[in-house]
Amino acid sequence: MPSLTVFKGSKDGSIVQGTTEKPELSGDQVLLKVTASGLCGTDLHYRTTDMALGHEGVGIIEATGPDVKYMKKGDRVGWGYEHNACGHCQQCLKGTETYCHERAMYGMADFDQGSFAHNAIWREAFLFPIPEGMSDEVAAPLQCGGATVFNALHAYNTQPTDTVGIMGVGGLGHLAIQFATKMGCRVIVLSGSDKKKDEAMKLGAHEFIATKGAKELKVSRPIDRLLVCTSAQPQWDLIMPIMAPGGTIYPLSVDEGNFTIPYMPLLATGITVQGMIVASRYIHQRMLDFAALHNIAPIIERFPMTEKGITDAMAKLDSGEMRYRAVLIPE
Amino acid sequence: MPSLTVFKGSKDGSIVQGTTEKPELSGDQVLLKVTASGLCGTDLHYRTTDMALGHEGVGIIEATGPDVKYMKKGDRVGWGYEHNACGHCQQCLKGTETYCHERAMYGMADFDQGSFAHNAIWREAFLFPIPEGMSDEVAAPLQCGGATVFNALHAYNTQPTDTVGIMGVGGLGHLAIQFATKMGCRVIVLSGSDKKKDEAMKLGAHEFIATKGAKELKVSRPIDRLLVCTSAQPQWDLIMPIMAPGGTIYPLSVDEGNFTIPYMPLLATGITVQGMIVASRYIHQRMLDFAALHNIAPIIERFPMTEKGITDAMAKLDSGEMRYRAVLIPE
Repeated sequence: MPSLTVFKGSKDGSIVQGTTEKPELSGDQVLLKVTASGLCGTDLHYRTTDMALGHEGVGIIEATGPDVKYMKKGDRVGWGYEHNACGHCQQCLKGTETYCHERAMYGMADFDQGSFAHNAIWREAFLFPIPEGMSDEVAAPLQCGGATVFNALHAYNTQPTDTVGIMGVGGLGHLAIQFATKMGCRVIVLSGSDKKKDEAMKLGAHEFIATKGAKELKVSRPIDRLLVCTSAQPQWDLIMPIMAPGGTIYPLSVDEGNFTIPYMPLLATGITVQGMIVASRYIHQRMLDFAALHNIAPIIERFPMTEKGITDAMAKLDSGEMRYRAVLIPE
Repeated sequence: MPSLTVFKGSKDGSIVQGTTEKPELSGDQVLLKVTASGLCGTDLHYRTTDMALGHEGVGIIEATGPDVKYMKKGDRVGWGYEHNACGHCQQCLKGTETYCHERAMYGMADFDQGSFAHNAIWREAFLFPIPEGMSDEVAAPLQCGGATVFNALHAYNTQPTDTVGIMGVGGLGHLAIQFATKMGCRVIVLSGSDKKKDEAMKLGAHEFIATKGAKELKVSRPIDRLLVCTSAQPQWDLIMPIMAPGGTIYPLSVDEGNFTIPYMPLLATGITVQGMIVASRYIHQRMLDFAALHNIAPIIERFPMTEKGITDAMAKLDSGEMRYRAVLIPE
């Protein structure tokens, strides 16, 4: 049986090129040739596990299983976390199969397919056609990073008249600025220093606040929606006073431990804390359409899809020096 | 100038009968004769301050100011926290003046009116007509306790098909059971022991779970909405696995410090944590109508509206022995 090249984590955190068996395609499975993959912060969390990494894939369909109906060989598609859903639990029935109780996401033992690979097997139902005119390397970081920030804005009914705060200008934040401004929102960026101010304003932000050392933050409008795109948690005593009553906080980066927020301001300001992961398939598709319409594109750095390329990209991401999303390209 | 009798807190926590000046009624102010007042857990928090206590008032209008238009002498009305709102901030404009940035609530220095009193001066705009057939002592605990739990259910669009978890059978919880069941919801009560099981089931609950010592909780349906009505915070590692994906948690009791919840389950289950305080006036009025239609009524214990009566009621509430809401009645 032929095999597929994939890049996995390993116990000591080094990236290992491995192979998985290439099964006969069954059901609505397709065989993909990977053309680009984004590198997400979550991949760093899982580099010490023996699983295929990468969940911001773009590629070309090379072969289709017997039940594939809507896609064909040669189609250009993207994929993210999801590669399955039970179809029967209440979340699947509601169309939010992101939360399917059988969801096969990172951390599950049988995750042997990823986008850090030369090929991948994926179900047709969990692939997204890439809009014409959008390049592979632009499309890749949208499959998780883009879908995550768009979902925070879209799934919970952000209004174009809302003031959106974006904390942290990185892989997620620099996409969030673009999505929120194109939705018509007033966008206030909160970042440690002034270093990324020019880029944030070029991406469409209306205000930029450097938070380091500040005793108090001054914003032109209270924040209706705050997307926390930093890996560290905010200093809440600075943030709570600039939240609008009834405002929503979205903690977007993945972390262990507890989420902790001042209790009385939470109640007395009527704050919503909204936990979420990536988008449902419906919203994922809308995100791609919206990005294509408004030329929303990640700012990327290219690395080769090799053990060394992945290792280098991870080191740079870890150091905080990435501007702003690494894209791995098979050679 | 004549004076009004009010009951205040004091530095050592003892309840002190005092007087406030009775001003000429101006604007839409009315003079109320208090006929009943509920005792809320929040009153315990403020008993060490020099302010008029009580915010679950029911009474009769005795006199009206020059701009009073909709109410008249002899009307029976209720009132809660609010006695003012700026009318200009975004919350007032949205009708959620509960969060008015000038909201005069507990903790503000000039709070010299309360419902632990023989009389009170209040603005007509912040009074609620009591439905016919609802007694004063039934109406009183609805002005804060009832409004709070109803708001959690109503303001965030609980569906009749939702499963509602109610944690804690006390002043708030025993009202929440009634409101949620009358809305058509499946109601699962979580309580430390089995002690209150019979009462909870009689109030309409469909399931009752004793949590003390449990390693795991078993519910017939995952919980879409969890109202935390206990003064202590739940043991989240027991609770998170029984929440429905996309479910909402309402921490309803007031506390200092931080609100802390496990981070990954918050994200991966798509949980909403909804901070809130009491209802807007619109929802408060709907709550009273709904309670009257469905004969929703607190189970009460009566105490005299005296220094001793208030002190005794507070001691009983503090001990956890109250079944379930104290109502103070002027003699």
